[in-house]
Amino acid sequence: MQHDKVLILDFGSQYTQLIARRVRELNIYSEIKPFNKIPTDIDSYKAVILSGSPNSVRGDNALHPELENIRAKKPMLAVCYGAQYLAHFSGGEVAPSSTREYGRANLSFIKENEVFFENISKGSQVWMSHSDTIKTLPTNGVLIASTTDVANAAYKIEGEDTYAIQFHPEVYHSTDGKQLLENFLVKISGLKQDWTPDSFVEETVAAIQEKVGNDKVVLGLSGGVDSTVAAVLLNKAIGENLYCIFVNNGLLRKNEFESVLKQYEGMGLNVKGVDASERFLKALVGLEDPEKKRKAIGNSFIEVFDDEAHKLTDVKWLAQGTIYPDVIESVSATGGPSATIKSHHNVGGLPDFMKLKIVEPLRAIFKDEVRRVGATLGIDPELLGRHPFPGPGLGIRILGDITAEKVRILQEVDAIFINGLKEWGLYDKVWQAGAMLLPVNSVGVMGDERTYEKCVALRAVESTDGMTADWVNLPYEFLQKTSNDIINKVKGVNRVVYDISSKPPATIEWE
Amino acid sequence: MQHDKVLILDFGSQYTQLIARRVRELNIYSEIKPFNKIPTDIDSYKAVILSGSPNSVRGDNALHPELENIRAKKPMLAVCYGAQYLAHFSGGEVAPSSTREYGRANLSFIKENEVFFENISKGSQVWMSHSDTIKTLPTNGVLIASTTDVANAAYKIEGEDTYAIQFHPEVYHSTDGKQLLENFLVKISGLKQDWTPDSFVEETVAAIQEKVGNDKVVLGLSGGVDSTVAAVLLNKAIGENLYCIFVNNGLLRKNEFESVLKQYEGMGLNVKGVDASERFLKALVGLEDPEKKRKAIGNSFIEVFDDEAHKLTDVKWLAQGTIYPDVIESVSATGGPSATIKSHHNVGGLPDFMKLKIVEPLRAIFKDEVRRVGATLGIDPELLGRHPFPGPGLGIRILGDITAEKVRILQEVDAIFINGLKEWGLYDKVWQAGAMLLPVNSVGVMGDERTYEKCVALRAVESTDGMTADWVNLPYEFLQKTSNDIINKVKGVNRVVYDISSKPPATIEWE
Repeated sequence: MQHDKVLILDFGSQYTQLIARRVRELNIYSEIKPFNKIPTDIDSYKAVILSGSPNSVRGDNALHPELENIRAKKPMLAVCYGAQYLAHFSGGEVAPSSTREYGRANLSFIKENEVFFENISKGSQVWMSHSDTIKTLPTNGVLIASTTDVANAAYKIEGEDTYAIQFHPEVYHSTDGKQLLENFLVKISGLKQDWTPDSFVEETVAAIQEKVGNDKVVLGLSGGVDSTVAAVLLNKAIGENLYCIFVNNGLLRKNEFESVLKQYEGMGLNVKGVDASERFLKALVGLEDPEKKRKAIGNSFIEVFDDEAHKLTDVKWLAQGTIYPDVIESVSATGGPSATIKSHHNVGGLPDFMKLKIVEPLRAIFKDEVRRVGATLGIDPELLGRHPFPGPGLGIRILGDITAEKVRILQEVDAIFINGLKEWGLYDKVWQAGAMLLPVNSVGVMGDERTYEKCVALRAVESTDGMTADWVNLPYEFLQKTSNDIINKVKGVNRVVYDISSKPPATIEWE
Repeated sequence: MQHDKVLILDFGSQYTQLIARRVRELNIYSEIKPFNKIPTDIDSYKAVILSGSPNSVRGDNALHPELENIRAKKPMLAVCYGAQYLAHFSGGEVAPSSTREYGRANLSFIKENEVFFENISKGSQVWMSHSDTIKTLPTNGVLIASTTDVANAAYKIEGEDTYAIQFHPEVYHSTDGKQLLENFLVKISGLKQDWTPDSFVEETVAAIQEKVGNDKVVLGLSGGVDSTVAAVLLNKAIGENLYCIFVNNGLLRKNEFESVLKQYEGMGLNVKGVDASERFLKALVGLEDPEKKRKAIGNSFIEVFDDEAHKLTDVKWLAQGTIYPDVIESVSATGGPSATIKSHHNVGGLPDFMKLKIVEPLRAIFKDEVRRVGATLGIDPELLGRHPFPGPGLGIRILGDITAEKVRILQEVDAIFINGLKEWGLYDKVWQAGAMLLPVNSVGVMGDERTYEKCVALRAVESTDGMTADWVNLPYEFLQKTSNDIINKVKGVNRVVYDISSKPPATIEWE
């Protein structure tokens, strides 16, 4: 089944992925492309949305899209930078505003009888985030909404299905943002809302069957949501031709290997558990540099996985749990490729020498969509609700060199923290949580004795996509109890700190 | 003027100092002595209080005081362990209670017409903390109060001024505890309530004048409350014969040397400021071990102070800001001396070779009393409200080796944190606060760049005496803003954690 789809042109805004997700929440498929890489099959998209940008249309770094095959030829919604771009380069004027307009505002004027604003009333709250402002509308521009501070908050172009808004409908604080996107996409652009988790499963299963046929597929399970959902999808498509390998790298959470393996077997997956803990720990001896540790863990995984894959005969395909944010090409401030922040454990996958073709059934969907697809597939909600856990596991949560004893300490600390979150009903309010073992000793007192032991840092963040994250305001009583439990029960730890840094400028993981 | 005084015999309870402070709040002077070192001039005390203890009267480690010169000879109040001791070894019986009785309880019975309970009504809340319980009263014991769970909550001995209570009147949760102490000390024992901050100042000034005469005195000012109050007291007593030296060890807070020096001069003190920052930093080069750092700082201070003192002629006395908790002899579980937790910067003072006699005007009073005395002397409340700051300063808050650059970073971080506490009205709710620079780098993102910078830990504790301390539940918004400010404004720091460990088992400072 062919679905209507939306093209989102990215100008580097932190909110671009949010636009794509809001559109998809309307059961309409959307794709993100860099503003300067417009797909040649532009006719396959029924509408286009231009994102915001950290850049100014007035500067040398202004980003110029080639819109000749889009503008006035198909419905287009220009958001923030997009709206300013259309104004500034088509007969209007953009100027710096006296102050950066950031935060909540309310629509004080809405033009009557505009389909674009159907079911949205005067007073509706919108989210602003811009330092330039549109002084005069472009040629044929018609004002359709204002706020108290921003006269030209929304306009359309007479004679085109072109709409432009200064505010961000994709941000939750824009309370009618979803309605507005629906008005534009469904009422104005005529797109069908038939892209659902059920249809995704049905079509993906068919696509896998067509692609893979009767070939054998090998998949590395990690215990995480992505690889699990990928496995269940593949299992539904090709049954026993799917061979899963679950490697214990010795850096998993306490008891995780045994419990997850049992869970997989209960789901009818064909899984081989491989305990390679000692091999990994041996490869890590003496390594302190985070990148060297990552590489040692990655290389060991490849070796172990390769060994196991070779035991299978006639495998043609390697399946991976890659998801959409891993493959979206990002836009930097200069329009060039953006700097790599950290070597990622998913993108790039395994090296060429494995000679396998790649199948990535989740490549087109976001994390929240993976969870919805998983639910449609009947996967245990507890498993679907698991926090993300980095590939190198506790290996990058033990700062400095790694020993079996440090892993044991951190597993105990982590278990107290994570089980505590579950007991207190806090686990599902947190996007990701864990503990770091710091290479720092500090003084303490136990009874009449002086201690000089390790410090652990607890980390719990809220996020919608892992790209930005706020530290969670966990209850005082919870932190107090958890800190006491850790210090009293885990030998070798006498101090606990809580990470109060947001991402950016910090990151979720420390290494 | 001679004041009536109370002897408190310590059996190692965590609350012993609280008993002394509650008594003093009644304007009655009290002294603490170990249970096995009863003063020979016992007749100079008008009443005796026996403290609680972590030990059991039933065990091999039971602590046995020699009470023959006290019991039935002068009024005696036995608290918790004291009450159990009197019962168990004088014809009564103490047994383990089925559960540890810990927390709030209410008096369900009070014997009528007992002066001991005057102005205290049935239902009054008391604080329990014991695992043994008194099953039968000692010979001549008369029950005078009960709670629902503890039948023998209070008794007296017929024919003696001996009273015994299972609960802790010294703890704030015993809401009528102060009234009870007043009933015992004033109504039953007849002590006068004339020991006040004013009388303390008057008598101490007279005592200093008598002791020191026309001799010159040298005093090391630290910027802290104790040395400042000591200096003002001495200044009042001997005027220009007091020579103060304020050393900048290069490990003070941001701008502290200049601002405190100015403040001292405004108070009319004869102060010489000595900037020895480089000398200290040089002595610290390459030292990572906390004890070695402490010693290097201590030795440098002695050298600098000695140099300066030698520039003065005919100085005979060294004044110090030693306070009562520094000199109370403590009792360990076995009755022997307790283990040293950390080398303390005050007790012991400077070495013999300085050949000066010691004058310590605050030796008899607690920290809160030092503040009240300071207020009576007219010292600026802001200066009196300053948090304690350890002698080695930032030197033990920079974990690992110390460099000028690290000092600069930590001074900036500390200033943001401490000024923030003041701006948010939180400073006076905190006993002690500061920042630690950890020798830990972690990953971060700034703009499109990857960072790999230092982590700082913030610490803020509530305490009444520094002996035990809880971490403070600072507001989320405050921590969020402070963390952002630090990371955005202090180059070299990309992560902030908050210490959520209590003392014990952690300590306030990390090194």
